[in-house]
Amino acid sequence: MKFEVTARDPRSSARAGILETGHGVIHTPIFMPVGTAGSVKAVHQRELENDVKAEIILGNTYHLYLRPGIELLEKAGGLHNFNGWKRPILTDSGGYQVYSLSENRKIVEEGVTFKSHIDGSRHHFTPEGVIDIQRTIGADIIMAFDECTPYPCEYKYAKKSMVLTHKWLERCVNRMRTTEPKYGYEQVLFPIVQGSVYKDLREESAAFIASQDQPGNAIGGLSVGEPHEDMYAMTSLVCGILPADKPRYLMGVGTPENILECIALGVDMFDCVMPTRNARNGMLFTTQGIINIRNERWKDDLSPIDAALGGHVSTFYSKAYLRHLVINKEILGAQIATLQNLTFYLWLAREARKQIEAGEFASWKEKMVKIVSQRL
Amino acid sequence: MKFEVTARDPRSSARAGILETGHGVIHTPIFMPVGTAGSVKAVHQRELENDVKAEIILGNTYHLYLRPGIELLEKAGGLHNFNGWKRPILTDSGGYQVYSLSENRKIVEEGVTFKSHIDGSRHHFTPEGVIDIQRTIGADIIMAFDECTPYPCEYKYAKKSMVLTHKWLERCVNRMRTTEPKYGYEQVLFPIVQGSVYKDLREESAAFIASQDQPGNAIGGLSVGEPHEDMYAMTSLVCGILPADKPRYLMGVGTPENILECIALGVDMFDCVMPTRNARNGMLFTTQGIINIRNERWKDDLSPIDAALGGHVSTFYSKAYLRHLVINKEILGAQIATLQNLTFYLWLAREARKQIEAGEFASWKEKMVKIVSQRL
Repeated sequence: MKFEVTARDPRSSARAGILETGHGVIHTPIFMPVGTAGSVKAVHQRELENDVKAEIILGNTYHLYLRPGIELLEKAGGLHNFNGWKRPILTDSGGYQVYSLSENRKIVEEGVTFKSHIDGSRHHFTPEGVIDIQRTIGADIIMAFDECTPYPCEYKYAKKSMVLTHKWLERCVNRMRTTEPKYGYEQVLFPIVQGSVYKDLREESAAFIASQDQPGNAIGGLSVGEPHEDMYAMTSLVCGILPADKPRYLMGVGTPENILECIALGVDMFDCVMPTRNARNGMLFTTQGIINIRNERWKDDLSPIDAALGGHVSTFYSKAYLRHLVINKEILGAQIATLQNLTFYLWLAREARKQIEAGEFASWKEKMVKIVSQRL
Repeated sequence: MKFEVTARDPRSSARAGILETGHGVIHTPIFMPVGTAGSVKAVHQRELENDVKAEIILGNTYHLYLRPGIELLEKAGGLHNFNGWKRPILTDSGGYQVYSLSENRKIVEEGVTFKSHIDGSRHHFTPEGVIDIQRTIGADIIMAFDECTPYPCEYKYAKKSMVLTHKWLERCVNRMRTTEPKYGYEQVLFPIVQGSVYKDLREESAAFIASQDQPGNAIGGLSVGEPHEDMYAMTSLVCGILPADKPRYLMGVGTPENILECIALGVDMFDCVMPTRNARNGMLFTTQGIINIRNERWKDDLSPIDAALGGHVSTFYSKAYLRHLVINKEILGAQIATLQNLTFYLWLAREARKQIEAGEFASWKEKMVKIVSQRL
């Protein structure tokens, strides 16, 4: 995998880059829609490609392992063949789900035993096993198996957990080195920086992760409830340590404002369920700000959802029609709102990229943060 | 509205025709997808047009009256402008919903008082009011306000109800005559034959409906639980009485087999929630037969959903992937299954049309009924 920084903003740490994968090129900064179980909820694959203009999507190891299962994915020749998405796929490692299943899992150094949320069956994940699973899913970018600490998290636990994450990382790196890509195209590993909101732990973790010399690096354990100031401080700190010539991925972030702020800090890749999940509750992200489409205010607003964003869905359907669909729990409401939000997120990343290339990112960002975070 | 029969099958009563409306031409026989509240569930309008190749869709007066309400639809300039569907729309009259709300409605000669299923609020429908509502919705084809009798239904009640439906029809015809189209294009009335499964009542009703000399006619009160033989017998009887130079619409029918059989009896237009509703439960209608995609049998069947049907969705996604989505309650599963079923229904109607034009319908129908009704 080749990464090239093609432009740097003169007044922030923002940069534009090109990431080459076995399934084509990704232009950074980039937002990656979340396709948990092999489907970005409520969106057809051709819509992801043509309307959203997604360049890479996420799959979730925990969910895909439980259903449809690794055997079927292998038979299909990987997730790309199974769901028909031909561009790059990144899979998380299941670490975050393990963290979410707090009642139903046990973490020891060897690995994690957990109960399926579907049928209560017992399963065991190890760093090696999780690499094998992601190889079989066919991810272009494989995430290291980590423990994602909650917020708040005591220093002692954060440190112990970070040490465990580092040990697991060495096993992941080793497993990657001793196994082959499964379907003929390159598969690379991204290690994950942990350390909660503790500066010294984040510094230690970032240095350790950097020392592993993998093709890209991720920052985990943020956007789990901590104040935005902490998220930005940790991200800034870690970006200063992670190598500048490799892509930096901030996991699970965030609002449009979070994304713009973290691009300014040197982050290249983002994912978050917010644009898809909130869409299904009627929350729209638009070029003019945030809309709760369920609000009475939009009842007879026959103007397009987001004329300035352009594209079919945002200009074809009106706010009043979308509100009607959402209020009536019509599936089409979820479809339209999801397309609007993802199209907006991808547009925002593309605009940021253009501004970086023009050397105007920092000032544009200040203005844009105000617009995209205001509630209409 | 102009209707022309362009071909007749030599060995059945099937015919092909062209129906011209203010929103373009409809080729009969035709299946009309149901868009209850102004949305065909789980399908984008451009998909209806480009993938399904729908030529006309239904809207539901009862639902649209309650939400979004007539005031907003009028402000939008009608349902076409509100939901962006540019081809013809037919609205039912609410008669069927009144019948379905059996606990929450009271029928007298003047009209029907009913309670909203949404908030329990009281409303009143009269034949005149229902015409006004459909004018405002902007339907190209307006259905007369009728009472749909249940099955089984005592002769006495069926007769009394039929008489009421006829009286209401005269009031509908009168209201149509004394009001203008609302948005500059033609709006026409289709009266509805009732009479349950009683031959003499159906004959009497069909003769009365024919005497009203409206641009098209409908057959109601079937597909409500009666044996298929009764449905076919009544349809055949009524088609023999309704004028041959006007389109005949069989309401709420049905399975692919029902549709082929009733085309053979002289029906031109169909609607049914089956392809859309059953899709959401994982039941697929295909060119090879009926599939319950939840069945273990399809678990690792990586072949396209319906290669012979063609079109993007039916060839792009595999049975195993669709099964995975449906089992996981992924919205995309409902989207794909709905597109498959509607595309198949429209294909079936187009194929029937071709066979009629080729003079081969009767023998093709015998063969096709077996294929499309078999469970795979």
